[in-house]
Amino acid sequence: MSLPATSAWLPDLLFTGARFESGLALVADAQGTILRLSREPADLAAAQRLSGRALLPGLVNAHSHAFHRVIRARSEFRSSAQRDTFWTWREVMFRAATALDPDDLLRASRMAFLEMALSGITTVGEFHYLHRAPNGRAYAEPNAMALALVRAAREVGLRICLLHSAYARAGWRRTPSPAQRRFIIESPDEYLTAYASLRVALASDTVAGLAWTGFAPHSLRAVPPDYLRAILPAMRAHAAPVHMHLSEQTDENEVCLAEHDTTPIGLLEHEGVLNETFTAVHAIHISTHEAVALARAKAHVCACPTTERNLGDGINPADLFFARGLPVALGTDTNVQTDLLEDARELEYHLRLKYLQREILAPAPAPEVDSDPSALATRLLACATRHGAASLHAPGGSLELGRAADFFTVALDDPALAGADVATLPAAIVFAGGRSCIVDVVIGGRPVVANGRHPQQAAIVGDFHALQHKLWAHL
Amino acid sequence: MSLPATSAWLPDLLFTGARFESGLALVADAQGTILRLSREPADLAAAQRLSGRALLPGLVNAHSHAFHRVIRARSEFRSSAQRDTFWTWREVMFRAATALDPDDLLRASRMAFLEMALSGITTVGEFHYLHRAPNGRAYAEPNAMALALVRAAREVGLRICLLHSAYARAGWRRTPSPAQRRFIIESPDEYLTAYASLRVALASDTVAGLAWTGFAPHSLRAVPPDYLRAILPAMRAHAAPVHMHLSEQTDENEVCLAEHDTTPIGLLEHEGVLNETFTAVHAIHISTHEAVALARAKAHVCACPTTERNLGDGINPADLFFARGLPVALGTDTNVQTDLLEDARELEYHLRLKYLQREILAPAPAPEVDSDPSALATRLLACATRHGAASLHAPGGSLELGRAADFFTVALDDPALAGADVATLPAAIVFAGGRSCIVDVVIGGRPVVANGRHPQQAAIVGDFHALQHKLWAHL
Repeated sequence: MSLPATSAWLPDLLFTGARFESGLALVADAQGTILRLSREPADLAAAQRLSGRALLPGLVNAHSHAFHRVIRARSEFRSSAQRDTFWTWREVMFRAATALDPDDLLRASRMAFLEMALSGITTVGEFHYLHRAPNGRAYAEPNAMALALVRAAREVGLRICLLHSAYARAGWRRTPSPAQRRFIIESPDEYLTAYASLRVALASDTVAGLAWTGFAPHSLRAVPPDYLRAILPAMRAHAAPVHMHLSEQTDENEVCLAEHDTTPIGLLEHEGVLNETFTAVHAIHISTHEAVALARAKAHVCACPTTERNLGDGINPADLFFARGLPVALGTDTNVQTDLLEDARELEYHLRLKYLQREILAPAPAPEVDSDPSALATRLLACATRHGAASLHAPGGSLELGRAADFFTVALDDPALAGADVATLPAAIVFAGGRSCIVDVVIGGRPVVANGRHPQQAAIVGDFHALQHKLWAHL
Repeated sequence: MSLPATSAWLPDLLFTGARFESGLALVADAQGTILRLSREPADLAAAQRLSGRALLPGLVNAHSHAFHRVIRARSEFRSSAQRDTFWTWREVMFRAATALDPDDLLRASRMAFLEMALSGITTVGEFHYLHRAPNGRAYAEPNAMALALVRAAREVGLRICLLHSAYARAGWRRTPSPAQRRFIIESPDEYLTAYASLRVALASDTVAGLAWTGFAPHSLRAVPPDYLRAILPAMRAHAAPVHMHLSEQTDENEVCLAEHDTTPIGLLEHEGVLNETFTAVHAIHISTHEAVALARAKAHVCACPTTERNLGDGINPADLFFARGLPVALGTDTNVQTDLLEDARELEYHLRLKYLQREILAPAPAPEVDSDPSALATRLLACATRHGAASLHAPGGSLELGRAADFFTVALDDPALAGADVATLPAAIVFAGGRSCIVDVVIGGRPVVANGRHPQQAAIVGDFHALQHKLWAHL
């Protein structure tokens, strides 16, 4: 189905990135690219009227493991008389990881992506590490699992950056558990071949901005320096996004110190991995010195607060990053809860709990200027949109000429937002909004969600119920 | 409108307090009181079928200041070059407190209560301190403001415990700010007269379980020991709920130490205020010793995590309370976000961020028994239901013989809950649920919300928009 030569939408209010404005139509071309924000009478007259709604750039979910959706609500209990941690949670995740074939993964990720779309997310960065069959052998199509993820995103209508994970080993001086056999591609050459092959398979989707690849050396646990060195030339040549789990747990840092006598960031800087294509996912347990190194490299950070609180990882030091101008993207990670607005507010809120103060990430008030009641919310919205798009090299993220027409709308009469005005609406959305407020989701000019529903919703949910029954009913 | 002699509902699953069960009908009498949970064929046949839905006891919001709803999204910015805290937030709240007349309060609280109902809340504990006119004079009807709150609850259909606040002073050696003139009733006798008069005004509602009173000595800042002593006999005689803000901020504790040479809990224990009618609201900055004192008195705690994170109050030490069997209720407090399920999960999650562990509030696994994947969620649901009802002396809170037929349903095919089974559904609801999942809300056997909508929703939202315009448009 092709789009008309131009499409236009006229909401009550449109978020320009700094504030909401009224009387602005968003006009896109037949490729779903933004031509203009317009007050021209002809554009206003031609536009589809989105009455009672405010329009914002689509949310960008910069870090997801879609298949974790199958363990939602399945790891929230004491598994041992000792303390539970990230590592005991990981055993549950490994159990799920072992069970899924490509068709299962399609069904699981379609469910995860559906919920994302309904929550206003228009692009996902899918950090993918289930490469091989459960027995550790390559599938006949080595990228069968990656392609299932891309297909799921296409069926839902979401843009996807497939972050293809390099995973060489279980960890320093560690034998892989059976589950990890699926993750491991021991040879950097084999990894790069699989990556190149995926890139070719997605070539036409990449041109259309619908699906593209990025590198994801999993972590320094999983990828030692010699492996990193082997794939670095390809990462530099392709100039694609490079995402890496980093300093999520203090144990990681300790092992890195023991193995390499430096911190993860220190090692990556030394190896020349840090640059403007690099995103440090989590980056919780890091020093000011390390934040400075990331900033110097013009790298990105991706925080995942809903997951980081669930796993007991710790509080993201976003104040360190904001102070140095490091862009912080957001991710739903384990999808234990899919609500990027909740992630946005937690970035601030967890710091309030740490410091017992308020307005940690807000800009200082400008003298002689009225305070903007949404200055903080605007920064947090940038994390959920623009910074995510920059981290993933995604075409959306802001409503500007040449960017993709990816957006969502909220109902101004939703009980969570009611009573907000133009000035306070960003703060209302960030601090009180959620899926209940969302009416439309449009990606590349095409409607994906209308009236809070996705056309394939019932089928996707039904398939997922069947999958969960298959996976868990024998327990 | 009277109810039929009996009403019955048959969901796919019904939460008994420990687990979900299928094939159970909930049967209530004409007064909306639960007669039985039934598997009798006649009851099942007569029941209204709630297909595709799971039924839970209504949530109990044990601590609300409804009027704070008017400042939602209006205090999330840096107000000064110094640090922002609870105290700078309070200035914004005081500004709103000064502006509202009884009719404004009706409109503001109707909005807050509507959002609560849509979120599954069936009873609210409204901690009310706007007693007088803005100039500090009593209204002709001294309880005009309290009665506006009760009317708002009635119009929405919510049960309300009106916690009538005693507020004698701004604080130790502090002159009241102009805003506080509304709060202050200097004479204990006048306070008790107003309380008694409100009790009489609500007598028939109290018999029906729809509206009743409780005492709310605001805090030790606002209520010195001699005032407490003066109202203590009435509190004992009435045996109503007694709620008090306590150790929300470290400053409070320091001032209490300076004035009384003891902690707030120490002072209250000494004055004989702590007993099974007492609820300590917040109780964040307290010692193990103080938790023991609360437990010894069989008192309650009310945590308000969504507000406590917003205000930078700190992390509620629910682990201290759970370890001593102290029941923890939950409140939405400032209503900056109205989502008691979010409060429930934060009770656990904030502790995970504190300790960098998981499953802090979960019961230890029983040896030789399969772990219950919802054991933790069941505890958190008790906080959001049963413990709240106990704190407020509310008739709902659990689906048992003789309790009120107050409940809500969730859609099992909601994208947040999809894929859960009977065993994991409580965890899915607590860790991923929210207003989007909620279909029906029934209070005392009467439908209040159907299909996620309240019949008065549009009018209440419209009125609230007009109020907000009046309050804030000149800014």
